[in-house]
Amino acid sequence: MTRHQRFLALAALGVAAFAVHAQSPKPEDQIKLRKAAYDMMGFSFGGINAMAEGKRPYDKDEATRLADLLVQVSMVPRRFFGEGTDKGETRAKPEIWTHRADFDAKMDKMITEAAKLPAIARSGDEAALKHQAKVVGEACGSCHDDFRVKR
Amino acid sequence: MTRHQRFLALAALGVAAFAVHAQSPKPEDQIKLRKAAYDMMGFSFGGINAMAEGKRPYDKDEATRLADLLVQVSMVPRRFFGEGTDKGETRAKPEIWTHRADFDAKMDKMITEAAKLPAIARSGDEAALKHQAKVVGEACGSCHDDFRVKR
Repeated sequence: MTRHQRFLALAALGVAAFAVHAQSPKPEDQIKLRKAAYDMMGFSFGGINAMAEGKRPYDKDEATRLADLLVQVSMVPRRFFGEGTDKGETRAKPEIWTHRADFDAKMDKMITEAAKLPAIARSGDEAALKHQAKVVGEACGSCHDDFRVKR
Repeated sequence: MTRHQRFLALAALGVAAFAVHAQSPKPEDQIKLRKAAYDMMGFSFGGINAMAEGKRPYDKDEATRLADLLVQVSMVPRRFFGEGTDKGETRAKPEIWTHRADFDAKMDKMITEAAKLPAIARSGDEAALKHQAKVVGEACGSCHDDFRVKR
């Protein structure tokens, strides 16, 4: 088996695993993927928020990069609170499933507010960025308050 | 302390943690963040590739969403192979640091090829998507072959 054949064989295996994964990930994979998305949100929003709070130098290009990333990853977690994902290595509270409409509304509010950041970052309006970072942070916090187990 | 005051105090703590984090994350945080990004890449590229391989029904809108996500997360890992991140819970090979120019070139190739997917996905040209998914998959694989420990 040449190196190229070996690569193709491994790639095919990978694709098969992905295919199952993407259509209906197992509960533990859903939990892993939503955590990965929240980690990316923490990184991207964290950087923007640190600038907004004056804890990191304002950098328009970096704010724009982080805002573009945030928008994309912010839409991921709502895919992965499916059946069976209330158990396991998760800080998700049972209330997510008993108060789903409220949870979804808070998730959507966060997504909607995050989606405003790229244009604001591109405009270079630091005051507007500061304001919108606060709005997004409150949207994150309101969901965490109700639906995430405190450490 | 009211609930709102408590939220603000916690938010400030969170921001402080983020600020340190975003400027110069500790090695273990860099490893965590690059893994989260690779998980998001596995999810987004995996979905596209499954469509390209006929293992999942072709869905233009979903392919577009996944391609937009992939582009953003594909740019994250190269931020997080910093000093001290060769040790710990990682499959990164020491060769990343001894052959850095080659590693960076392979990383950049993957980023460049992934960046072509959103326009192709939006065009609805399924054959072009299939072709580009193969190119991106090979770019991923060539880096994994040389720089990631096999399981």
